[in-house]
Amino acid sequence: MPSGQGYDPHDPAFALHEGGKLETVSTVPLRDRDDLSLAYTPGVARVCSAIADMPELVHDLTWRSNVVAVVTDGSAVLGLGDIGPAAALPVMEGKAVLFKSFAGVDAVPICLDARSIDDIVETVVRLAPSFGGINLEDISAPRCFEIEARLVEALDIPVFHDDQHGTAVVVLAALRNAARLTGRALGDLRVVVSGAGAAGVAVTTILREAGIGSISVADRLGVLHAGRADLTSVKRHLASVTDGGDHPGTLVEALTGADVFIGVSGGVVPEEAVASMARDAIVFALANPDPEVHPDVARRHARVVATGRSDHPNQINNVLAFPGIFRGALDVRASAITEPMKLAAAEAVAAVVADELTEDCIVPSPFDERVAPAVAAAVSAAAVRDGVARR
Amino acid sequence: MPSGQGYDPHDPAFALHEGGKLETVSTVPLRDRDDLSLAYTPGVARVCSAIADMPELVHDLTWRSNVVAVVTDGSAVLGLGDIGPAAALPVMEGKAVLFKSFAGVDAVPICLDARSIDDIVETVVRLAPSFGGINLEDISAPRCFEIEARLVEALDIPVFHDDQHGTAVVVLAALRNAARLTGRALGDLRVVVSGAGAAGVAVTTILREAGIGSISVADRLGVLHAGRADLTSVKRHLASVTDGGDHPGTLVEALTGADVFIGVSGGVVPEEAVASMARDAIVFALANPDPEVHPDVARRHARVVATGRSDHPNQINNVLAFPGIFRGALDVRASAITEPMKLAAAEAVAAVVADELTEDCIVPSPFDERVAPAVAAAVSAAAVRDGVARR
Repeated sequence: MPSGQGYDPHDPAFALHEGGKLETVSTVPLRDRDDLSLAYTPGVARVCSAIADMPELVHDLTWRSNVVAVVTDGSAVLGLGDIGPAAALPVMEGKAVLFKSFAGVDAVPICLDARSIDDIVETVVRLAPSFGGINLEDISAPRCFEIEARLVEALDIPVFHDDQHGTAVVVLAALRNAARLTGRALGDLRVVVSGAGAAGVAVTTILREAGIGSISVADRLGVLHAGRADLTSVKRHLASVTDGGDHPGTLVEALTGADVFIGVSGGVVPEEAVASMARDAIVFALANPDPEVHPDVARRHARVVATGRSDHPNQINNVLAFPGIFRGALDVRASAITEPMKLAAAEAVAAVVADELTEDCIVPSPFDERVAPAVAAAVSAAAVRDGVARR
Repeated sequence: MPSGQGYDPHDPAFALHEGGKLETVSTVPLRDRDDLSLAYTPGVARVCSAIADMPELVHDLTWRSNVVAVVTDGSAVLGLGDIGPAAALPVMEGKAVLFKSFAGVDAVPICLDARSIDDIVETVVRLAPSFGGINLEDISAPRCFEIEARLVEALDIPVFHDDQHGTAVVVLAALRNAARLTGRALGDLRVVVSGAGAAGVAVTTILREAGIGSISVADRLGVLHAGRADLTSVKRHLASVTDGGDHPGTLVEALTGADVFIGVSGGVVPEEAVASMARDAIVFALANPDPEVHPDVARRHARVVATGRSDHPNQINNVLAFPGIFRGALDVRASAITEPMKLAAAEAVAAVVADELTEDCIVPSPFDERVAPAVAAAVSAAAVRDGVARR
């Protein structure tokens, strides 16, 4: 047993990780020469020839249509930052475990020793013949936006950056239910998003698509608006499609009278700012492990409070979304995961607990077995409606 | 159920391949929030941090040290030739199944949409942080030689082109036992190899290392010798280290008086040529599915006959070598698979049946459960002796 900085033999997380969390297993028998001659030579040659003649058979005669590559470069791992591909492997293995456990999707961790956008895109394109989908994970912003966009363009299989869209889908699901619980329409809500990285951009995008009335987005320097000279192209675009002009200034100033706070930044929101929000305020303080405002503090002023943590009510956990989304996409051999498919996933997550809503239950538990099948069915149906299903 | 050219619903190989042959499976429980908080966030972050601080922990705390990438570009698949990466996937899945079934090695098919040597090398180098070893498969000669050499140079994990070295190891094992059975020393044998592709080159290399007395290598135009103007650099090198000068001319001419024929070419050897060989001749006609000379014909003149087929005695099957070789290399975290490790593997395969030798049993059955553990132990020990073991 090794010992070293950071390695704690008494931490059950280390005991659990000993030897890894994943294995590959044969689904066919291999007892004798007859089995071998079907699963391998000479029988396999007939299967290969058939696929060479009729390429779409690869979906029937291999595991491709059920296996997703979980791809990272290790540049933005959880709250740890840029720890590189090797140190990111436990997260990608964990993700693969969640894919299989929650939705029966096979998944393989692919940690890339590559940093430029070109290199990452090129590598994933070369890998793609082996996989039915690509789940991008823990790639730093703003690189993640271009990498995803270029892969979506280049490939005819689903490509999905979970840090963006998984979070966005679950946030929208939670917000639907919080609005319903507090008797408000989405179109009447004024929302302040704190954080303009991967999650902030995707959350803002999906909230716009869902018809939220007003959205302001703040980064560390305050609310994004067209007058700011320091913005990246991504943030400039965000400023142009959100309501920075109406609520310029600091995050705290923007929160005055706001209905909803969504924190995906890791910053800090003072109690007074929560107190200044509208009546029946909704606070999603999603930074992990330290929420932007402690939920106990937020609850003094807000009616509905959610976090990213499992030890408080209303955990906004991506596992509510990505397993079912890929299950639904793979089931109909979708060529992409479109915006309507993401919106359908959010509605499905929300619907699971729509009849059991309370302030402490606006999203299902991660272990609610109704979630993944409901999301998968909604996503498959949306793919068919959206014309990207191939069966 | 699809139908198409080459797809035969009555062929049991197709039924077996429905849905593929492989799956990923979690090795850890995921029953509740406590399990989730150890296998995924927040617990996994502590494991990632520990690896970031002490990189060698990746071998203990992830599946990396037990998982091999089975990499192809689909350019030389079985006897089918260049069918591309997608149609090659059933073979790579099959290989992955064999790795796990025979030696407990996890394996992932990686079929690359890449063709240039530079692109393939670069892609595999970028993937390497996720894998404990690289098994190259069905990549055409002569590209396979440079790809393997450059990956061996670039990576500190085992890289092994099975079409070359798996075949070579099992051929040497079979030849050791055939020589022993017929009462000859390896140093006294005159061997003719037909085929100067991936397998021919590797077979010749390992036979030289094992001290075979004389080796001639023939391609389709005859025996390689320094006077031929048409040779590639690989074949020129082969000519320079083998005995082309002593046996110029055709393959048939070279066979006159030879002790051993090893066919890895797919060509045809006439019965008269086998009849012209030395007494107690040894014929390995390994082309699949059609041996260079039918084993029933060869047996009229040769004392020991082997093929690549499962329906004749003495099947020269790579599965006798590669699972145990990778098992042994991974067990000691070898940084490479060296020539002494391959020679040790061949000796171990041969030794399994050394006390049961007959003309129809010079190699173990692929299902002999003694083989992989014996090969693994011999390879681990050789890695330690050779200074490439890291534990």
